[in-house]
Amino acid sequence: MTQTLRVAVIGAGRMGADHIKRLSTRIHGAEVAAVVDVDLARAQAAIEGIDGAVALASADEALNNGDVNAVLIATPGFLHEEILYKALEKDFPILCEKPLTPDADSAWKVVQAEQSLGHKRIQVGFMRRFDAEYSALGAIIRNSELGELLMLHHQHRNPTTPEGFTNEMLINDSVVHEFDAIRYFTGEEITSVQVRLGKPTRSAPNGQHDPQHVLLETESGVLADVEIYVNAKFGYQVATQASFEDGIVSIGGDNGPYVQSAGKWGGNVTPGFEERFGAAYDVEVQAWVDAALRGEIGGPTAWDGYATAACCEAGVEAQKSGEKVKVQLNTKPDLYK
Amino acid sequence: MTQTLRVAVIGAGRMGADHIKRLSTRIHGAEVAAVVDVDLARAQAAIEGIDGAVALASADEALNNGDVNAVLIATPGFLHEEILYKALEKDFPILCEKPLTPDADSAWKVVQAEQSLGHKRIQVGFMRRFDAEYSALGAIIRNSELGELLMLHHQHRNPTTPEGFTNEMLINDSVVHEFDAIRYFTGEEITSVQVRLGKPTRSAPNGQHDPQHVLLETESGVLADVEIYVNAKFGYQVATQASFEDGIVSIGGDNGPYVQSAGKWGGNVTPGFEERFGAAYDVEVQAWVDAALRGEIGGPTAWDGYATAACCEAGVEAQKSGEKVKVQLNTKPDLYK
Amino acid sequence: MTQTLRVAVIGAGRMGADHIKRLSTRIHGAEVAAVVDVDLARAQAAIEGIDGAVALASADEALNNGDVNAVLIATPGFLHEEILYKALEKDFPILCEKPLTPDADSAWKVVQAEQSLGHKRIQVGFMRRFDAEYSALGAIIRNSELGELLMLHHQHRNPTTPEGFTNEMLINDSVVHEFDAIRYFTGEEITSVQVRLGKPTRSAPNGQHDPQHVLLETESGVLADVEIYVNAKFGYQVATQASFEDGIVSIGGDNGPYVQSAGKWGGNVTPGFEERFGAAYDVEVQAWVDAALRGEIGGPTAWDGYATAACCEAGVEAQKSGEKVKVQLNTKPDLYK
Amino acid sequence: MTQTLRVAVIGAGRMGADHIKRLSTRIHGAEVAAVVDVDLARAQAAIEGIDGAVALASADEALNNGDVNAVLIATPGFLHEEILYKALEKDFPILCEKPLTPDADSAWKVVQAEQSLGHKRIQVGFMRRFDAEYSALGAIIRNSELGELLMLHHQHRNPTTPEGFTNEMLINDSVVHEFDAIRYFTGEEITSVQVRLGKPTRSAPNGQHDPQHVLLETESGVLADVEIYVNAKFGYQVATQASFEDGIVSIGGDNGPYVQSAGKWGGNVTPGFEERFGAAYDVEVQAWVDAALRGEIGGPTAWDGYATAACCEAGVEAQKSGEKVKVQLNTKPDLYK
Repeated sequence: MTQTLRVAVIGAGRMGADHIKRLSTRIHGAEVAAVVDVDLARAQAAIEGIDGAVALASADEALNNGDVNAVLIATPGFLHEEILYKALEKDFPILCEKPLTPDADSAWKVVQAEQSLGHKRIQVGFMRRFDAEYSALGAIIRNSELGELLMLHHQHRNPTTPEGFTNEMLINDSVVHEFDAIRYFTGEEITSVQVRLGKPTRSAPNGQHDPQHVLLETESGVLADVEIYVNAKFGYQVATQASFEDGIVSIGGDNGPYVQSAGKWGGNVTPGFEERFGAAYDVEVQAWVDAALRGEIGGPTAWDGYATAACCEAGVEAQKSGEKVKVQLNTKPDLYK
Repeated sequence: MTQTLRVAVIGAGRMGADHIKRLSTRIHGAEVAAVVDVDLARAQAAIEGIDGAVALASADEALNNGDVNAVLIATPGFLHEEILYKALEKDFPILCEKPLTPDADSAWKVVQAEQSLGHKRIQVGFMRRFDAEYSALGAIIRNSELGELLMLHHQHRNPTTPEGFTNEMLINDSVVHEFDAIRYFTGEEITSVQVRLGKPTRSAPNGQHDPQHVLLETESGVLADVEIYVNAKFGYQVATQASFEDGIVSIGGDNGPYVQSAGKWGGNVTPGFEERFGAAYDVEVQAWVDAALRGEIGGPTAWDGYATAACCEAGVEAQKSGEKVKVQLNTKPDLYK
Repeated sequence: MTQTLRVAVIGAGRMGADHIKRLSTRIHGAEVAAVVDVDLARAQAAIEGIDGAVALASADEALNNGDVNAVLIATPGFLHEEILYKALEKDFPILCEKPLTPDADSAWKVVQAEQSLGHKRIQVGFMRRFDAEYSALGAIIRNSELGELLMLHHQHRNPTTPEGFTNEMLINDSVVHEFDAIRYFTGEEITSVQVRLGKPTRSAPNGQHDPQHVLLETESGVLADVEIYVNAKFGYQVATQASFEDGIVSIGGDNGPYVQSAGKWGGNVTPGFEERFGAAYDVEVQAWVDAALRGEIGGPTAWDGYATAACCEAGVEAQKSGEKVKVQLNTKPDLYK
Repeated sequence: MTQTLRVAVIGAGRMGADHIKRLSTRIHGAEVAAVVDVDLARAQAAIEGIDGAVALASADEALNNGDVNAVLIATPGFLHEEILYKALEKDFPILCEKPLTPDADSAWKVVQAEQSLGHKRIQVGFMRRFDAEYSALGAIIRNSELGELLMLHHQHRNPTTPEGFTNEMLINDSVVHEFDAIRYFTGEEITSVQVRLGKPTRSAPNGQHDPQHVLLETESGVLADVEIYVNAKFGYQVATQASFEDGIVSIGGDNGPYVQSAGKWGGNVTPGFEERFGAAYDVEVQAWVDAALRGEIGGPTAWDGYATAACCEAGVEAQKSGEKVKVQLNTKPDLYK
C-alpha cells in the first residue's frame, strides 16, 4: 500500500461533499483523487480547488482510474450494493456510509462476498462509535467500572425532517444509529423490537407518526429503549443514559458557552448532526485511512451493516403490528468474530 | 374551626416521627395534640419536649380526646381504612399517608364514605405535587407553554430497599408515586400498564427483580414510562423528562455545592427521600393545615387515592403477565370533579 | 418565656411586609402581635386577616403593648439605633434587619449597650448564613475537608437598582452582605479593602459607577474579591467560589427546570433576592424564634453588625481613593467571643 | 509554495514530540521532514515510523536541508531568538511556541527583523485562540451580542508544577496565556498589572508563592483578573467569565460523561493541558499549515509575542512590588495593524 490513500468519493451530495472537504483539508494520509456523481456538474463543483482530483460520472470510471486506490461510498443506500461488489473486486479499502444496503438479504450477500475475498475491506459509516463520549461510555461498560450494564435509555431528537420522510425511514435512517449504538455498547446482538405509538406532535408531516418509543432487548436481557422524535423543533440531540449495577452514566448533554442574559441561563442547542458529530466524522475517517494504509479496517464491519439491517426490518414490522418482533440473524461468519 | 389545628398523629414510625417533628417545629397553625402508636413507648418518645401532647395506644382514644381536631395517619397502609372511617365520622380534617388503602375496592369504599359526608375531608399524602420542580413542570404543562405534552420519562431510583421489599411493593410503594405524578402532570387517568423485566442487578435481594421498566398510557395517548430501580446504590433520585411539541423539560437534576477535587468535578447525590423531598413535605403539610383551617383540603383527594390503587392493581398484574393490562376505574363522583 | 413569640414588626415596607407574611403563615412558634409604621394605613393593610394583631404608629406603643414580647426591626437603617435601645431596655429578643446601624460608631454604642445588659438579645439580619449552600460551604471550610481555604471569589449581581442608589449604597447596602459572608466563611475579621473602578455599564444611573471590583484580605491572608454589579440586567445572582489547598467549591449556580426549546438549553435566572433567598429568610426567622424561646439568639450578633459597619466605612473610603484601606476595629468584647 | 509543508521541528521534548505526532498523523498538508534535538537520540526516537524524516542535531542543518520548507520551534524559549533569525533569513513559514523570546527587548528585535522582511512569517503558539469556546466567546464580544464587555475573570489552575518552577515562571509561563487571551478577547493592549499575594497553599514547592491574584486593565478600562493557582491538585482548569452590559458568559466548564455513583454526581476533571487543549493545538497547527501554503500566517503574530513579553515584564515587577505597574510598549508597526 502506498503512503497516501487516493480516494474516489462516490456521491457528491450533502454527506459526500462533507467527506470531500474533510479528506482534502483535515485528514492526514488521504487525498481526494476522484469525485463521482450522476450529476457531473455537482462532481465538478465538489473538486474545485483540489489539486489532482477529477470529476467523473460513473463509479466504474473511478474504480478503473489508475490514480484511485480507495473508495468512499456516499450515494443513496439503494445504490451501495453494486458499487460495493465492484470495489471488493478491486480489493480496495471501502468506507461505506450507512446503510450498508437497504435490507438484510442484500446486506448478507455483501457479507458473503467479502468473506470470499478472505479479509475485511468494508468499513460501515456508523460514526457515533467515534464520538468521544460514546467511546468513554463504551470503555466504562467494557471495563465493568460500574458493574454490569442493565438498561440503556436513548433520546434521538431532530429539529425537523426532510420532505418525504416516512415512518419506515424513521426506523431505517434514524433509529438505525441506536441499533448500532446498542450493539456497540453491549457487544451483543439485539433480539427483539417493539414500537409504541402515542400522542403525536402536530408538527409532523402528514402520514408520519412522531414521536415513537422503540423498545429493544439484547442477548443478555439488557433493556434498551429509544425515544425517537424527529420534529422536536428545539434542535438536535442524541443522548444516552446507561444504568449499571453500581451507578448511572449519561452522555450527550448540552454544552458550549454558558450565558446568563435576559432572565435566562443556558446556551445554544446543537442545531444538527454536523455540529454534534463533526469531530466524530473526522475521527472515523482518519481511523479508516490509518487502518487502510495498514491493509485493515478501522471501524464497524459489513456484519454490523447486516445485523442493523435485520434490526431495521424487525423495527418496521413492529411499528406496524405494535407487537414485540424477534430479530432474525444468520450465524456470524468467522471473519467477523 | 379554631385558629390552631390540634393534630393526632396516628403511627410514630419513620414517617410519623418525621411529621411530628414537622408539626411541632416548622408548621404554622398546627400543634401535635396526641401521638398514637401500638408501641406506647414509641409514642411517648415521640412527644418528648412537645408541650400539651399526649401519648396514646389507640386511635379511638385520640379521636375522642377533646383536645384533638385533626388527624394525620402515618400507620402501615393496611390499617388506614378503619381509622379513616372513624375520622370521617368525626368530620375531622385528615391527612392520610399513601396509600389511601391497599387495594382499589377498599379505596372505593372510602371514596363512597366521604361522598356520603358530602364534602372532602381526606387529603392523600402524594407529597411530590408540592415539590417546587414538580409544580414548575405542572405549570408549564397546564399553561401549554411548549405546546402539547407528548411523552413523560421517569427515573425513580433508591439506594437500597428495606428487608422484605417484594416485587409487588415495588409497584405499590414505589411506582405508585409515578402513577400519581403522571395523573397530576397530565390531568388524565392512566389507561394501561405494561412491565418489562430485563437483566437484573445482583444487588437485589432474593425474589426481587430489579430494575423494572414500567410503560403507561393516559387517556389522550401520552406515552409515559418509569425506570424503577430500587437497589441503584449511588443514592436517591427522582427525575422526570417531559417531551412537548415545542421542547423538552427535565426536572430532578442533581444540585448542591459544586466541588472540583481529586480529579473529579461534581457534588453529593441526595441520599434519601427526606433530603430530596423534605421541603415538599413541609409545603404539603402547611397546605393541609391552611386548607383545614378553612374547612377544605389542600391536595390530592380520596379519588386520587382510589385511582392510583387501581393503577397499582393493574401494575402488579402486568408485572406477572408481561402483557399490557387495562386500568379499570369506576365513574368519577361529582364531589371530585 | 412563653411558648409563643408575640412579635412587634417595626416597619411595614417591602422587607417588613415580607416578614409579617412569614411570621403569620409559615413560622412555628411566633405570631404577629403588632405592626408599626409611620404610615398607619400601611400598618393596617399589613395586619389584614391576622387575628390578634394591632396596627400602631409608633415603636413605643408597640414595645409597651402588654401583648408584645419580641421585636423585628425592618425600618430604614437610620432609624434602628433608637428602637434598638428601647427594645434592649425591655430585654426583648430582637431581630434587626441589616445594617445594625448606619456607621461603625453608632454600631459600637449598640454593642456596648447590649454588653451592659449582660446577655445577647440582638440578632442581625444577615440571612445568607441560613442559605443551604452557604451552610454547606461553611461546613466544608470549618471541617477542613479540602485543606485550608486560600481564596474566595464572589459575584453579586442585581438586575437593576432602585432610584437614588449611590456608590456609597453599593458598598453599604450590597457589598455589606459579602463583608459578612467572608467573615462567616473564614471566621476571621477583614483587615483591608480596595476598590477598582473600570469600564462602567451604560445601564447605570447617573453618578453611579457600576460594576466595581472590591478586593479584601482577612487576618490570615485569605484573598477575597467581590464583583459587585448592580445593573446586570439578566437577573439576580449571588455566587461564591472558594479555592482550597485540595480543591475548589462553587455555590450559587443556577437551577430549576431544565428546558430545551427554540435552539436554546437552560432555565430561568432567579429574578430577585426573595426568590433566591426566600427559604433562607424562613430558616433565619425560625432560628431566631426557636432561640428566642430559649432566651438566646440564633444567628449573627451585634458584633457582626458593628464589624461589617467598619468594613463599609473602609470600603467607601477605598472607593474614593482607589487605595487599599485598613479596617479599624475595637477589641472584641467577651460577650461575643 | 509546494502543496505540502515539509516541516523541521526544532526540539523533540514534550511539546515537540506532541507536534511531531500531530503533524505526522492528523494534520493535512504537512509532513515532518526533520526533527532537531541537541540530544540526537531523542530526535531519532521522535522520527521512528515517519517515512522521509531525518533526525538532526542542529537547527542549521535542518534549515539548509533541501527537503525542509517550514519550521516549527519547540525548544526552550531562550533558544528561540537565534533560530527565528535564521528561519526568517530563509523566509520560511514559522510556528514558534510561546514565548516568542524571553523578554520584551529581544522580542522587539524579532519584530523589527520580520518588518525588514516586509511580510509576516512568524506565528506564535498562543493556541487558546483556537479553542472552540475561546472562539465562541471572542465572537460574542466582537459582535457586541451582549453590549460592551466590562470585566473578565479568569481561573488558571494546574494540578502541580514541574520542579524548579519559580514565581517568575508563574507569570512568564502560565499567566502569559491570559495576557494573550485578554488581548485577544478585548482587541486591546493591557495597560497595567498588579499582583496580590495572600495565604499560600502548603502544596507549593519551596520559594514559590501559590496561588496569586493578578489584576489587569486594558486600554478602554476593562477590569480583568486572573486567579493563577498552579498546585491546585484537583486537575487542570482554564476558565473565563466575561461580564457584559447585558449578560454574563462563562467558558471552560467541566464536561464529559456524567456519572452518578457511590453517593456522588459528576465526572472527571481534565488532567492536563493536552486533554483540555489537544483539539485547539490541532486547529492551530492546521491553521498555520493552511495559511503557510498560501504564503500567510494563520494566528497570533510576532507583535503578539512582543506585547505579551512586555506584560510579563510588568507582571514580574508587580509581583515583587505589590504595586500597580504600567505596561510599556513601543508603537505598533504597520505590518501588524
